[in-house]
Amino acid sequence: MALIVQKFGGTSVGTVERIEQVAEKVKKFHEAGNELVIVLSAMSGETNRLIDLAKQISEQPVPRELDVMVSTGEQVTIALLAMALIKRGVPAVSYTGNQVRILTDSAHNKARILQIDDQKIRTDLKAGRVVVVAGFQGVDEQGNITTLGRGGSDTTGVALAAALKADECQIYTDVDGVYTTDPRVVPQARRLDKITFEEMLEMASLGSKVLQIRSVEFAGKYNVPLRVLHSFQEGPGTLITIDEEESMEQPIISGIAFNRDEAKLTIRGVPDTPGVAFKILGPISAANIEVDMIVQNVAHDNTTDFTFTVHRNDYQNAQQVLEQTAREINAREVSGDLKIAKVSIVGVGMRSHAGVASRMFEALAKESINIQMISTSEIKVSVVIEEKYLELAVRALHTAFELDAPARQGE
Amino acid sequence: MALIVQKFGGTSVGTVERIEQVAEKVKKFHEAGNELVIVLSAMSGETNRLIDLAKQISEQPVPRELDVMVSTGEQVTIALLAMALIKRGVPAVSYTGNQVRILTDSAHNKARILQIDDQKIRTDLKAGRVVVVAGFQGVDEQGNITTLGRGGSDTTGVALAAALKADECQIYTDVDGVYTTDPRVVPQARRLDKITFEEMLEMASLGSKVLQIRSVEFAGKYNVPLRVLHSFQEGPGTLITIDEEESMEQPIISGIAFNRDEAKLTIRGVPDTPGVAFKILGPISAANIEVDMIVQNVAHDNTTDFTFTVHRNDYQNAQQVLEQTAREINAREVSGDLKIAKVSIVGVGMRSHAGVASRMFEALAKESINIQMISTSEIKVSVVIEEKYLELAVRALHTAFELDAPARQGE
Repeated sequence: MALIVQKFGGTSVGTVERIEQVAEKVKKFHEAGNELVIVLSAMSGETNRLIDLAKQISEQPVPRELDVMVSTGEQVTIALLAMALIKRGVPAVSYTGNQVRILTDSAHNKARILQIDDQKIRTDLKAGRVVVVAGFQGVDEQGNITTLGRGGSDTTGVALAAALKADECQIYTDVDGVYTTDPRVVPQARRLDKITFEEMLEMASLGSKVLQIRSVEFAGKYNVPLRVLHSFQEGPGTLITIDEEESMEQPIISGIAFNRDEAKLTIRGVPDTPGVAFKILGPISAANIEVDMIVQNVAHDNTTDFTFTVHRNDYQNAQQVLEQTAREINAREVSGDLKIAKVSIVGVGMRSHAGVASRMFEALAKESINIQMISTSEIKVSVVIEEKYLELAVRALHTAFELDAPARQGE
Repeated sequence: MALIVQKFGGTSVGTVERIEQVAEKVKKFHEAGNELVIVLSAMSGETNRLIDLAKQISEQPVPRELDVMVSTGEQVTIALLAMALIKRGVPAVSYTGNQVRILTDSAHNKARILQIDDQKIRTDLKAGRVVVVAGFQGVDEQGNITTLGRGGSDTTGVALAAALKADECQIYTDVDGVYTTDPRVVPQARRLDKITFEEMLEMASLGSKVLQIRSVEFAGKYNVPLRVLHSFQEGPGTLITIDEEESMEQPIISGIAFNRDEAKLTIRGVPDTPGVAFKILGPISAANIEVDMIVQNVAHDNTTDFTFTVHRNDYQNAQQVLEQTAREINAREVSGDLKIAKVSIVGVGMRSHAGVASRMFEALAKESINIQMISTSEIKVSVVIEEKYLELAVRALHTAFELDAPARQGE
């Protein structure tokens, strides 16, 4: 018997039929003797419908009141699932964030969970009831309704699992696990049985949008075993956990992440004086533009070149800011490129393996793919390349690091 | 400066445009220096949409969970109105039933208000804020969400007005007040400036569906001046209050109510023994059928005839029960009639006026309308007549009791 927190997202509860399917699934787990806490999102589309309604009143709806509205989405699904469970003879009860009491700070629309009162839930679990909790929402010290921001239901699931010291937090989605890379790009991509929190964070932030980043951070911090599974297909999914095995067999890299959301900006011929990086990036940050990769090379003739990437949506804005800066600091020129892609290899195994980066560069060189920027961290190496080579690069790296799935029997 | 509770129903907040109109209205009252508490229903149709959704899961949805769902309807409108007020520069804050804390018993779907915590609201009013409260809902001692049943938002309004000792509770509707009778039947019907709680109760329960009966009882009990007004037309409406004036001019009757929802059942030749009324009505009540008028005449040859009315929807069911009873108690026969109507004259003035009933019967006799049943209370006289004479009877009585509006200038 285990205590399991299961989270189902918006598409998994998008229709009454789907809610009935979820109820069937939960019933099986309950009959197998597990203690269950189910966390739900709103029906897919409902949160957007509510936000649209609010925007008809005001382009910038008051955050406190927006939370009062959008939190109703999950309130509907928890009641529906509780009804569907009770109909099947499974004792169940639903709770809003306020009823559980999921205490958050008062940052409306992007609140952070401070504390969870587990008393009610424990009483219900002891009494054999399945507890259905509204994801994404909480309540602040003053009793105001708060929401955690997009994808916050994952965070609710992990936070509940941490508070209850659950054996596992299962996140049900529309994919059957975390893959070595996007199967649409590399048909040989494999589902990973296991991945560490750190690797998942790098994979997630680099564009494998299976889990909300905050929930992975949370799970790592409290060491909550997290499992990604498909809502309506059987399978073991992918377990995200701490790296406790020191297996000889551990692969050097776990996966390949990529994204095409970024654009590159370069300012050339910058007089190489102390504080120049701040002079360049200060105004960018002041314009509320987030910067991802930053590369500055050693100076030449007392000038240096400085390159960074921003989200493509911020490209024009960033370019204008940068040109202004260039005039002020007497830089030679500003150039930019929208047609870039970032490809990263991720794996805790690379910590103990030299030569991972060079193996990556070799694989790309073999395909004559030019590397424009390089950035490294302890468990990842990222490169920026021309966008048109993205798929080729990902496939080459997938093979070079021996991630390809063995051909199945009969194939 | 006055403290006013204003309640707006589902059609008054049925669209974003309407909510903006309500905000404009509230703004004017606020600028005039009033302290305002606004009680809202869900957008028209929303409660039914939610109930339909629940019924897709289960024909008999679990009452606790149904309350969790349907209470979201008002939660959306209060947030939208608060946003619309703040957009207009009017400080405002929304509260759910739980947030106010409107404490109810645990009778889900038809809970009764036990107590209202007025602390938060008083603080907000002192700070100059308009307080927007979700109608129809509360929370029980254990923190479960409850609803008050259909029309419960009126009750919320009155209960808040009582708790806050408000100067007036204004109920905004799609009519501009309470009329002497239905203007669709009698074009000369007049809007009443004033009516007593007792009269309103009789008018409401007899079919003038302007206000929910429970809210009128509540207002009477706590002596909350209640005013019915049109949401989007200017006008004084009708004030419902206690009968504190002993005006000489007080009209004998205030209005004429009627309904065609009832059917009549008669059991003839019942052996006239003690307890016979219970023998007849016990099984009807056991079948969950409500009985309205009951008439038993003096016995003849040791047998008596017994007649009562039920809702038309219950007619067939009641007839079957009654025929079973007739066999058991050896009654002669059972007969029934669906084509009846009930017409009532209502007025506190009749207490001090003899001959009101005979004046009524005279007016009906003049039109050759036969009276089938008669029932009286302190402030009303009801008769059952053939349905086809309904409009004729109402018009005749309206004229006989001098309720017709004086012809307007130019008419």
